[in-house]
Amino acid sequence: MNTFNFSKHLDIKNVRINDTFWNSIIKLVKNEVIPYQYLALQDKIDGAEKSFCIENFIKAKNTKNKMKCGKSIKTFPVDKWHYDEKNSEPEAFKGWVFQDSDVYKWIEAVSYSLQNFPDSELESKALEYIDIICDAQLENGYLDTLYIINDISKAFTNLKDHHELYCFGHLAEAAVSFYNATGNDKLLKTACAFADLICDTFGENKIKGYDGHEICEMALFKLYKATGIKKYLDTALFFINERGKKPYYYDTEKGIVSTGDNYHYNQAHIPPRQQTEAVGHAVRGVYLYSAMADLAKELKDKELKATCDSIWDNIENKKMYITGGIGATVDGEAFSFDYDLPNDLAYSETCASIGLIFFARRMGEMSFDSKYNDVIERALYNTVLAGMGQDGKSFFYVNPLEVLPEASRCDSRKHHIKPVRQKWFGCACCPPNLARLISSLNEYIYNENDNTIFINQYICSSAKTKYGNLELCEQNGKYILKADFSKPIKIALRIPYWCDKFELNRSFEIINGYAVFNCSHDYIEINLNTAPKIVRCSNRVRANTGKAAVTYGPFIYCLEEADNGCDLQMLSIDTSKKPVLNNGYITAEGYREIPDSRLYMNYLEPRKEKCTLKFIPYYKWGNRGENEMCVYVRV
Amino acid sequence: MNTFNFSKHLDIKNVRINDTFWNSIIKLVKNEVIPYQYLALQDKIDGAEKSFCIENFIKAKNTKNKMKCGKSIKTFPVDKWHYDEKNSEPEAFKGWVFQDSDVYKWIEAVSYSLQNFPDSELESKALEYIDIICDAQLENGYLDTLYIINDISKAFTNLKDHHELYCFGHLAEAAVSFYNATGNDKLLKTACAFADLICDTFGENKIKGYDGHEICEMALFKLYKATGIKKYLDTALFFINERGKKPYYYDTEKGIVSTGDNYHYNQAHIPPRQQTEAVGHAVRGVYLYSAMADLAKELKDKELKATCDSIWDNIENKKMYITGGIGATVDGEAFSFDYDLPNDLAYSETCASIGLIFFARRMGEMSFDSKYNDVIERALYNTVLAGMGQDGKSFFYVNPLEVLPEASRCDSRKHHIKPVRQKWFGCACCPPNLARLISSLNEYIYNENDNTIFINQYICSSAKTKYGNLELCEQNGKYILKADFSKPIKIALRIPYWCDKFELNRSFEIINGYAVFNCSHDYIEINLNTAPKIVRCSNRVRANTGKAAVTYGPFIYCLEEADNGCDLQMLSIDTSKKPVLNNGYITAEGYREIPDSRLYMNYLEPRKEKCTLKFIPYYKWGNRGENEMCVYVRV
Repeated sequence: MNTFNFSKHLDIKNVRINDTFWNSIIKLVKNEVIPYQYLALQDKIDGAEKSFCIENFIKAKNTKNKMKCGKSIKTFPVDKWHYDEKNSEPEAFKGWVFQDSDVYKWIEAVSYSLQNFPDSELESKALEYIDIICDAQLENGYLDTLYIINDISKAFTNLKDHHELYCFGHLAEAAVSFYNATGNDKLLKTACAFADLICDTFGENKIKGYDGHEICEMALFKLYKATGIKKYLDTALFFINERGKKPYYYDTEKGIVSTGDNYHYNQAHIPPRQQTEAVGHAVRGVYLYSAMADLAKELKDKELKATCDSIWDNIENKKMYITGGIGATVDGEAFSFDYDLPNDLAYSETCASIGLIFFARRMGEMSFDSKYNDVIERALYNTVLAGMGQDGKSFFYVNPLEVLPEASRCDSRKHHIKPVRQKWFGCACCPPNLARLISSLNEYIYNENDNTIFINQYICSSAKTKYGNLELCEQNGKYILKADFSKPIKIALRIPYWCDKFELNRSFEIINGYAVFNCSHDYIEINLNTAPKIVRCSNRVRANTGKAAVTYGPFIYCLEEADNGCDLQMLSIDTSKKPVLNNGYITAEGYREIPDSRLYMNYLEPRKEKCTLKFIPYYKWGNRGENEMCVYVRV
Repeated sequence: MNTFNFSKHLDIKNVRINDTFWNSIIKLVKNEVIPYQYLALQDKIDGAEKSFCIENFIKAKNTKNKMKCGKSIKTFPVDKWHYDEKNSEPEAFKGWVFQDSDVYKWIEAVSYSLQNFPDSELESKALEYIDIICDAQLENGYLDTLYIINDISKAFTNLKDHHELYCFGHLAEAAVSFYNATGNDKLLKTACAFADLICDTFGENKIKGYDGHEICEMALFKLYKATGIKKYLDTALFFINERGKKPYYYDTEKGIVSTGDNYHYNQAHIPPRQQTEAVGHAVRGVYLYSAMADLAKELKDKELKATCDSIWDNIENKKMYITGGIGATVDGEAFSFDYDLPNDLAYSETCASIGLIFFARRMGEMSFDSKYNDVIERALYNTVLAGMGQDGKSFFYVNPLEVLPEASRCDSRKHHIKPVRQKWFGCACCPPNLARLISSLNEYIYNENDNTIFINQYICSSAKTKYGNLELCEQNGKYILKADFSKPIKIALRIPYWCDKFELNRSFEIINGYAVFNCSHDYIEINLNTAPKIVRCSNRVRANTGKAAVTYGPFIYCLEEADNGCDLQMLSIDTSKKPVLNNGYITAEGYREIPDSRLYMNYLEPRKEKCTLKFIPYYKWGNRGENEMCVYVRV
């Protein structure tokens, strides 16, 4: 089906979301998350961990001005990932080495939001931050507050552990988004100046290094697409091709010789083109894979595409939770080995699922297969949504599939599992990442190419395509597609992976998981026959043998103690009975065992009573205080 | 049943073991473990981690002699738990801070062994080590090679982290045993000299400190029983009473003020008398509890007994694996919270089960209840035996109930889970501890008091009691008890917890789990009707809901990949069919699921095929190379 390849998502400005469910989330982001983060960046949230983000930019500006005046500059060590308020001098950099990226992610989220909801006050706030950012940039284009404040002579000397190229990446993404949203190119110029410096610094016959936390490859590509400046594309490709080569650059910059085993963490143990499975820090991984997909598509690079296909297959079929979570282990926030998907020890970082969505969109634009958007849907409706509390002010970084609050308190192996959402993180990658994804959701619904409109997500919305207008809405439990095209055009409508009975009021062909049909001026009824279902996980996953989960459409459900009492492990579900959808929850028939009085005993089936299990959507868990939760229940 | 209280185990010299099974293990210890450890103590085992034990004693002697001559002494830091060969000066102490205890434990094992098998060559070797030990003792009685070699001025300044009192404890236990075995009191005098120094140093109006790793309380009590010197008893009691008082001594010696939360690890967060559950480092815990039981019994201290009862109950009913393992978490090698008994993350240290046996024996001597010896049997036949390979030269420190070699390699949370036994440990607490327990097994079979002989373990043996001779042997699957008493005396025969049909060819009364009857010149047939059984664990334990285990008598069985193929999680057992005992293994009917091809799917029971599960005794696991293992299987 080569003719279907190479589609492109519709731009945010061409899609308007009219979805009740999603608009409530998008507005929560606009009305709560964005203003909250605006204050957090300036450390104005009582009781939240300090960010130091804006403070660092202002310090950097002052240092830069001193430099310009030729004043003597005090230096501070650049030797840690985190700079404590207590243990370093007041003028030095504070917080995490990647703290600059917080404001960049915020600006990116604001940019998308402005396109959905023009808001001059918010735009002014963004411009205020943009001024602060641009003021800190050195004349040569360099912009990383850690090194500007603490010791500029050390810039680019610790690519492995520090985050200059990572922060650049978020800067570039923010700059392109803000430019697209407002036409204001101030931040874009700043990003390009830094990008130029990076292109001058890294490459053949220059420094043959590459970033420790990937994102700049994807960002350079975005900057290339926005500006047409080819060296950005070349440098992105250089970073990908250079990564993991021997002798290891990470060894070279530290003056050591290693086996490279530790560089699995950075996907830099072997060159990316030789990689076949997802390894290492999950967010780093999916950011790299996203860039690889960008370049494979742009350059029609078959080798790179084959690598992406192999890594995708590994994630989708061996390393992804039912919730779309990835990165099973807290150890390095990393992918674990195949089928190692523990429920109660899961890391499953919100950011990693967001990155998986980036990777999936790029794969779905390169290859025509519904599986990519199936994964986007799985991650979006579950792990991503779960990352944010219903107040928009509390967040999960880690998204376990089973929680026992006592274990989180008492067991150091589970300290990363928080039974309730946290106010804000000093290491605040997830909340602003979530804000930028949710605010740009418009871009995940439709794709188009020379002869087809692809409908990837069932999010009610209206779209301007190059062939005319299209509207997707919901009526009486069915989706209605209204097309108003100048000429007959193909529609490819994703049949969701969870849909057992897909009905359309016209004939269609199923190609690669999509229902494909011609359409011009049309009113099409789509019936997904969504119903509560019992599903299960492969028996290759040790944690889930003999268990099942309950779903409704794209939503994975879970049991909470608040509804079902404690000791959730004593519950089992009767798979012969159909679960029933109620108002926001699902009930299913099952059993509750009577607690045993002895620790060990001759085998007799535990005594049990019939009971009704009450499931809530996974994304809503942990909104009612600390309590037990589990996704899987015994059958 | 107060009349039955306060029994005492028969001394090793009065019991001869004639048991085929156990004699093969005891001889393995004598012929392999003891000679192997003799060489290991001198670092003469190729490829094994170095012990430095004897080397340190020789260095300490040299330092001491220099001191005596008034020569200047070079000092080295005493600031770590482990002193690396590479990173410290050649003349300094090497290895773990508690390394002295290795030779003490070896001498204790040798002492027991000599009573079972007189061996003048082995006795000479022990005397050779005893000379080396005694030569290192300072004139004031002090004997800890770390401080003698590195900096004697720092002695007793870090009780929390260092192990002077712990090493003293093992010295005293070794000394008493060697004296009992040979009548040679050289080591006993050395132990007493050190004990005298300790009694002079610690107490009311002296240093109000206590050990960081308990054992000296139990050892001082043993020394008191051997010598009659009351101050040893007083100091043991002082240590117990002082422990955990505020202000914390561990704070005082470091000049800090803490909440004491970290002292859970040392059972020193509150005074032992106020403790109601087992917490902290499991070996430390059971060593303390053993001493508390010793003193409670000796002093008829009701408060201390009530504390022991409560802690016992907590361990037995909430914190003990089916294998008799304790200390569920690697984090601090510690007891976890109630019912937290994960199979694949278990710590369950061999030494902790040995310590549990010490505690249980003391409890069983204080209170008449079969549960104490039930636990001894459970720990002895499973975790303790599993600790040693069938070659007597490889050992498990950690005893998991489920092993996936890939997880042990890839998952840092499971690095402590070794899929095969290790040659020797630098931190070699378990192998010599195992040797001393197995070599003194004679003392765990019979107890006596004023009117009763208690038979606690079904280990074929002959005993000299104060009433006459007794013999327990096995014939055609039955046990035979031959009594030759001067007058009718009560026999209390433990009915094992696993025995569903206990038969005796005479009438008996069941009291606290014992079959009690009168006996003089008698030949009694005991039929335990041992048969393979399916058992299960309380549904309060999350890891084991919906699962069962297979046992035969006191032996817990397990599945290994070598017999059952990989992916043991795909197996289930048919509990309606009786498992069958074969030659050394048990077969049971069950199913093997066909591996699923997809990761997530609509619920349908997995396809499965009938199969025969082959179980081997747990203690034999890991003797056929690296492979999967599990104790529990789904029903």
